[in-house]
Parts: sequence; C-alpha cells; structure tokens
Amino acid sequence: MPWLPTPREPLLRVAVTGGTHGNEMSGVYLARHWLQCPEELRRPSFSAIPILANPEASAACSRYVGQDLNRSFTSAVLTSRATSNDPYEVTRARELNQWLGPKASGQAFDFILDLHNTTANMRACILANSDCCAFAMHMCHYLQLQNPELPCHVIHYQSGETFSLQSVAKMGLSLELGPQPQGVLQADIFSQMRALVASSLDFIELFNQGTGFPAFEMEVYRHCGEEDFPRTEAGDLAGIVHPQLQDQDFEPLQPGAPIFQLFSGEEVLYQGDRTVYPMFINEAAYYEKHMAFMKTEKTSILVPALPPLPAAAPIQTP
Amino acid sequence: MPWLPTPREPLLRVAVTGGTHGNEMSGVYLARHWLQCPEELRRPSFSAIPILANPEASAACSRYVGQDLNRSFTSAVLTSRATSNDPYEVTRARELNQWLGPKASGQAFDFILDLHNTTANMRACILANSDCCAFAMHMCHYLQLQNPELPCHVIHYQSGETFSLQSVAKMGLSLELGPQPQGVLQADIFSQMRALVASSLDFIELFNQGTGFPAFEMEVYRHCGEEDFPRTEAGDLAGIVHPQLQDQDFEPLQPGAPIFQLFSGEEVLYQGDRTVYPMFINEAAYYEKHMAFMKTEKTSILVPALPPLPAAAPIQTP
Repeated sequence: MPWLPTPREPLLRVAVTGGTHGNEMSGVYLARHWLQCPEELRRPSFSAIPILANPEASAACSRYVGQDLNRSFTSAVLTSRATSNDPYEVTRARELNQWLGPKASGQAFDFILDLHNTTANMRACILANSDCCAFAMHMCHYLQLQNPELPCHVIHYQSGETFSLQSVAKMGLSLELGPQPQGVLQADIFSQMRALVASSLDFIELFNQGTGFPAFEMEVYRHCGEEDFPRTEAGDLAGIVHPQLQDQDFEPLQPGAPIFQLFSGEEVLYQGDRTVYPMFINEAAYYEKHMAFMKTEKTSILVPALPPLPAAAPIQTP
Repeated sequence: MPWLPTPREPLLRVAVTGGTHGNEMSGVYLARHWLQCPEELRRPSFSAIPILANPEASAACSRYVGQDLNRSFTSAVLTSRATSNDPYEVTRARELNQWLGPKASGQAFDFILDLHNTTANMRACILANSDCCAFAMHMCHYLQLQNPELPCHVIHYQSGETFSLQSVAKMGLSLELGPQPQGVLQADIFSQMRALVASSLDFIELFNQGTGFPAFEMEVYRHCGEEDFPRTEAGDLAGIVHPQLQDQDFEPLQPGAPIFQLFSGEEVLYQGDRTVYPMFINEAAYYEKHMAFMKTEKTSILVPALPPLPAAAPIQTP
C-alpha cells in the first residue's frame, strides 16, 4: 500500500477529542475531566488539548442533536455558506475545522485522537483511514505492545473522501471501546481508554525526542461491506442478530452460518462467498444506518520504518 | 403483610404492554410483532391484547419524548384538565387510562403485564408494588417454577401512590430484563421475555380453568432507598460505579465496601449501617434521576393460598 510521508518535525499540536458522539460516555467524561485537570495530557515536548467535541449532544446524552458530527467533516459541509437552518453539528464541524484545521492545510493540527464507545463487543480497537500514514500505524503498534492485555485490533476504513473528526488533522486515529451501553460509564472501559490515551501521548513524546521505530508486519481488518437487518416490506425490522453471531466481533464468519433470527423463528444464513470478519455487531447507533454489522477482511500489512527526527530538530516546550 | 383480595372471576381483560420506554427494545419489538401476529397471546379462555404503550418514544427510540410515561399514571395527571401544552406522555397516559382503566375502577382491565429492559445486570426479574395481591405473587412463583434457568427475582416497590402503567389495571406486574443497551435487541433477552410472557398467560389460563395454588414462602427484595453518584459542587458526575460493584446486582453490599471510583482515582466506600442488596446498578436511564443504584433488603414473605374459582364460574371465550 502507498504510505503518506512521515512527519519530519516534532508533533506539537495534538488534540484528544471526546463526546464527538454525546452518548459515548468514556470520551465525554474523560474530556470533561481533562478540561478541569489538563496536566494528565502534558508531556515534556508538548501538551495535548482536551476537547469536548459535541457539547450540545453531550448535554443531551444523545449521539447528535441535528446530524452525526462524525460524518460532517466533508468538503461539502466545511466549504458551504453558513445559513440559519444549518443543523447544530454542521456549525460545530466548521468551528472545529477552524480550530483544528483547516482540513488538508499546512495549518492543521498534527494529530487528533478521537474517543468512541460502542455497544458491540469490540473490546479495545483502533480505527484508521486506509490511506493513513505509517506514523499512525506505528502508534497502533506501540499501543498493542504497551497494552498487551487489550487486543487493540486495527480496522482500516475504505478509502474515499474522509468525513470524520480525526480527518481534520494531518494525522489521526479513533479509539473505539466496548461493549458499553449508550449513556453509561463503566469503570473498566474508562480505565482502558485512559491508559490508551496515555500510551498514545507517550508514543508521540518518544518520537518528538528522536526515537525511530523499525519496520514491522501488522494484522489489520479492512472494511469490505455492510449487512443490514432483515426487514419487512415496510422497512421495519423482521428479525434480530442470531445468538450465534451476537458478540462474535473479530471472529470469522463462514458462508452458510446463521446471522439473523426472524421474529417468526426462522434463521437467516450468511450468503457471502467467502469468510469475513464481522465488526460492530448489533451496534445501537447503526440500526438507523441500516447496518447490523460491518464486514471486514483480515489482511497483513508491512509498515515501513519510522525514521527518527533529525537530531537538530528543535523541540519547543509550549 | 396485608393482602388485597384475590379475584373470584376469570381474568378476561388482559393487556401485554411494550415500549412504555421507547428505547427498551424487547418490549417494543414484541408488541410490534404481536400486533401483526396476535395468536401467540391467545389462550382458550381469553386473549391478551398487545399494546405499544408509547408509540412516539418508540419511533424516536428514546425513553420518552416529553416526560417518563411510567411515572405519569398519578391521579394528579389522570384527573387534571387537558391543555395544549401537555407533554405527549401526559396525553398518552390519559388515553391508556381510558382504554385500560379507569385506574382503581371496576371497569379497569384485570391484568397488565408491562415489559421493560435495563442496562444493568438484572437478568430476569419481576417488579411489583408492595401492596399487590397474592394473585400476582402466585404468578411470580409460577414463572420461577416454569423458567428455572432464569433467576426471576421479585422486587417490591415501596408503597405510596402508584404511578406506573401497570397500576392502571386491577392487578399487574413488570418484567425487567437485562443487561441490554438502550436501542439494541439481543436475541437471548428477546427469547427470555417471550417465554416469560407465555408463562404468565399460561398461569392466568390455569386460574381461569379453576386451578387453585397452595400457600408458599417467597424471597423478595424490598426497596429501601437509593444512592446517587458522587458529584461535583456544580452537580456533575465526579466518579463512576466501582468495578467491584459493577454488575453485582442482587449481591449483598456490606458497609465499608467500595461503591464508587472518583475520576481523581480515590475510592468511595459504602456508608450504610447494614447490608443491602443493590439493584439497577449503573442503569443508563437513572443518571438523570440521580440514582447510581437502588438499595433493597432481602426478606421472606408467606403468600397465602390462591383458592380455585368456584366451579360454576362461567368461562367466556371472547
């Protein structure tokens, strides 16, 4: 795969964003806590800025109030003229783009780490755009090595126009932890997310201080499609995720295996022609997106070495 | 405890209500399914009516749109004059009271079985008002015997004015199944709820056909208080349910045991002076009600025999 260039200067402008979806509580409360106690995000060479990305949705404890903020960072949204009828998240996306971007510009933040929860049994995983840079993959690898008790699987989204909050910065990743119900804070997931953020900042600090990292091979799950629930002619749900598929995120799904149970009692079998690895199985927020689960292929990628910064690179302490 | 009189006639007017909270999906989808296929609720002596109790909240997949419907069946709400500013659930409570009540009248339905989910690890349990009748406790006992794989614990709410949907009928119970995130349908919980509803209707059928049931002793959990989250001076959350308490619903909580973990890392210990049994630990819907968990006492009650209906009682087939 083609790799975007790795940074040749220290990363000084870093943001950690929580509450992009206002009912994903680990990020909401970590952001609120860090806004009061920002020292946890300080490292010798930089300080990451905590941001509550969607304050109105967080106050309402809902995913969004007008539209999904994490699908709003497209050039169509960011460059169109503001009107009084814009949904709140359109306005907020433009604000965040002014603050952390502008997207795809030299002024953009160096890195955004965006914090999410899922109701699916995804445990701890990391989402990246498939055309991301080797730097982000080295950070993933570091998280895996530093947190061996967590799976820290890496998922690559399909390429195409990016739309997520993290895409505003020059580089970015999303942490996705579950299962956790919407509107609930669970101590174990809260602690895991906090530890992963700390490791991410530690990795940036190592890089800023001149550490290089060797090439390595990494297993990634690459998005290759989606599966909707069975539906009635009127579009209502006609069934439910099969108990044999529920909670089996990251496990292989073979053609012919049961994936849904109709309310009438019948089973629906997977019709695909090859093994896939389902993700976000039965995620609450994806019912409205007509996705019962995401399909991925498991593949292996060779990530090139991350060369150390030139010794002369100035480390500015902000 | 004093017992209300047991019925002396067959129960012919029975309702099964789902979607009283629109994001508790088992009841929402069972009600929708039964409205299409009502035969599952038929028994020889009666047919239970399926009702989607809060259609607007179910369409929005939210607990409520204006106020909590399941706290709206008070005499203040039901007897006050309608205005154009009434929240949707106030109007809907009056409609349901006209249909299934009027509450506390001879015209009221014989039985309402109301279906709920919780994000807490409550498994399958049954909620009753503490001044309920022996008939309802015999139904609970029957559910326990017929579904030995489920705990089917019984919880008694404090007496006082009733406010729940089930209180509109002469008798009623709520089924509460979890853990299930809001907005998610899980196959195992869906099947358990469906089986418990079937057993409940079977019990009514046995009673209608003239079966009597002997006295028995039953363990119940009696509501005795609530515990809020630790909060900042501004009222925001200052901590999270302690990992040692999370998911420990129905387990004894001793004075001095840790119940919360502050974001700063400190532990908060339980200050009570006696052992309690926590319920609804970390339920999403109760954050706004300032309840991190409900406290109950475990006690044993002697339920008197349920005498058979007189042989001459006419069984009308509707």
